[in-house]
Amino acid sequence: MLENKDNRTELSELGEFGLIELISKSIKLQNSSTIKGIGDDAAVMDNSEMMTVVTTDMLLENVHFDLSYMPLKHLGYKAVTVNLSDIYAMNATPRQVTVSIAMSNRFSLEAIEEFYSGVILACEKYGVDVVGGDTSSSVHGFVISVTAIGVAKKEDVVYRNGAEVTDLICVSGDLGAAYVGLQLLEREKKIFLENPGIQPDLGGNDYILERQLKPEAGKEIIAQLKEIGVKPTSMIDISDGLSSELLHICTQSGVGCQIYEDKIPIDPQTFNVAREFNLDPTVCALNGGEDYELLFTVKLADYEKVRANLDISLIGHITDKAEGINLINKAGGSHALIAQGWDALLKR
Amino acid sequence: MLENKDNRTELSELGEFGLIELISKSIKLQNSSTIKGIGDDAAVMDNSEMMTVVTTDMLLENVHFDLSYMPLKHLGYKAVTVNLSDIYAMNATPRQVTVSIAMSNRFSLEAIEEFYSGVILACEKYGVDVVGGDTSSSVHGFVISVTAIGVAKKEDVVYRNGAEVTDLICVSGDLGAAYVGLQLLEREKKIFLENPGIQPDLGGNDYILERQLKPEAGKEIIAQLKEIGVKPTSMIDISDGLSSELLHICTQSGVGCQIYEDKIPIDPQTFNVAREFNLDPTVCALNGGEDYELLFTVKLADYEKVRANLDISLIGHITDKAEGINLINKAGGSHALIAQGWDALLKR
Repeated sequence: MLENKDNRTELSELGEFGLIELISKSIKLQNSSTIKGIGDDAAVMDNSEMMTVVTTDMLLENVHFDLSYMPLKHLGYKAVTVNLSDIYAMNATPRQVTVSIAMSNRFSLEAIEEFYSGVILACEKYGVDVVGGDTSSSVHGFVISVTAIGVAKKEDVVYRNGAEVTDLICVSGDLGAAYVGLQLLEREKKIFLENPGIQPDLGGNDYILERQLKPEAGKEIIAQLKEIGVKPTSMIDISDGLSSELLHICTQSGVGCQIYEDKIPIDPQTFNVAREFNLDPTVCALNGGEDYELLFTVKLADYEKVRANLDISLIGHITDKAEGINLINKAGGSHALIAQGWDALLKR
Repeated sequence: MLENKDNRTELSELGEFGLIELISKSIKLQNSSTIKGIGDDAAVMDNSEMMTVVTTDMLLENVHFDLSYMPLKHLGYKAVTVNLSDIYAMNATPRQVTVSIAMSNRFSLEAIEEFYSGVILACEKYGVDVVGGDTSSSVHGFVISVTAIGVAKKEDVVYRNGAEVTDLICVSGDLGAAYVGLQLLEREKKIFLENPGIQPDLGGNDYILERQLKPEAGKEIIAQLKEIGVKPTSMIDISDGLSSELLHICTQSGVGCQIYEDKIPIDPQTFNVAREFNLDPTVCALNGGEDYELLFTVKLADYEKVRANLDISLIGHITDKAEGINLINKAGGSHALIAQGWDALLKR
């Protein structure tokens, strides 16, 4: 990459405390529960009478993201939203995040500012405060670790283990787009590496690219469920693919399930580009992952309420454990589902 | 390192979920406030009516630790205690931690178990629950990110910004040992690399080695302060060195200070080995870091109470900001203190 020396500030010029001060300046606290943010040994939050909900994720360059097509601002945005997604999946409201980064001297101050601009954009959108973190150097590559903290009333928290026989299985939004978007980015990267003269051909596929590069967390669907008076019996966010998440819910709830291929929500753009890659769109939805939609179950009595919501698809129902975890395909045949989702440890 | 093939389990044989399950099994929850630990989208804690306190740290191989002399079990222990140290420095009680790790395929399952045995030992000692985390692969080396969560009554929380003129400056334990211990380990490593036949000569220096390899957090000193009825006016843990931490307290409190070289607590072993390395023991205490002792200020009226405590050294007092931040040396001369502590970004 060509670098304009004038626009590059070496991190060593600033030092760790200089960098922390600079990052702190760009952060405005939004929650009255955030008593103390960056600048002490620890952050302090006043969540009196509420349950505290905590989740964390670590992202590594060339394992979880590829900077050759992932802009740093999007990366900062995504690093936050994937954690908020886990908080919403507990039916909780995210309030604070800590963001730790380690980077090699390949990165300039401007690169870090670009990353943080994405972090801050996501925090503003979701009403979340950055209250701490850690900055250090790495020998190789860029490492990000985000922890998100949320609150919920005790009676509102939804776990993975509450699904019961006859419950309806629902998903928000549509599935498979992030995975197909990734295929597109990988293809264009390969073409570029083989022939740097060719411009990448990404036009007209904005939706699936955005789903991969700038995913959103389930804030709105949680608000909608509250509005229509539905509390899910179980819930999980779809980070590894529908199959894998369904297995988590069924295993932890001690139940089986039946879902219908023709009910799985897939966007036309996802469908068409999957076909272009000779991929089965259903398989992309089942195993692709990174959609960050919510998978949840509701009582049969809530059928009318959820059916009326355009953002929610009813894809099947919970069965007795003995019946297994099955997909009914478009021809009416039944297949046992297995988790083939993204497995970090097999991806090396 | 020689490896017995029979005692090595490849991580790829287990997969991510297998590894998480295995780690989860070794974790026993200790706090009734921990409603849900590992196994859902997020952990759930009931800290009703208490303030929540959060801190996080990221540790990278060959930046923050060197596995050639840092046993994995000690590393797990230290990764937890350095975070708990930050919680105690808020005068809070740690309750939960999340532990995320990324490792390359150079590491076996047995290595990860060794690391977690240290994590769990620290958690048992400090009464803390492991409630979540993330496991993934890395391209290079071992990355650890720990987040610690604690609670405190609102009126008990101690910040860095509460020091006032005439307050007494106190430190717990002794300083410089961790840094001198590191010099010893680095020297023996160098000798070993130059001549693998020579056995390392570490004998008789257990104290400073343990201070580097297995530091403890300030649980006892916090309990003692409560017992004698002293609430510090400001507090910070000493991770970067006494100078750097004093500057943080003075800057954030808008005050100056005067400390006395002959009052800085230094263990005889630290003193002797520092001399062996031609290092000034005082400089080791001021700038060495990693001692994880507590630096705090108390009201002058609490003088008798803290003086009676053998674990607390009174090293000086807070002055007006205009007087600066000064060290009075053994000859009675005054020197302005500057932060020369460990700076992650300059260490590359």
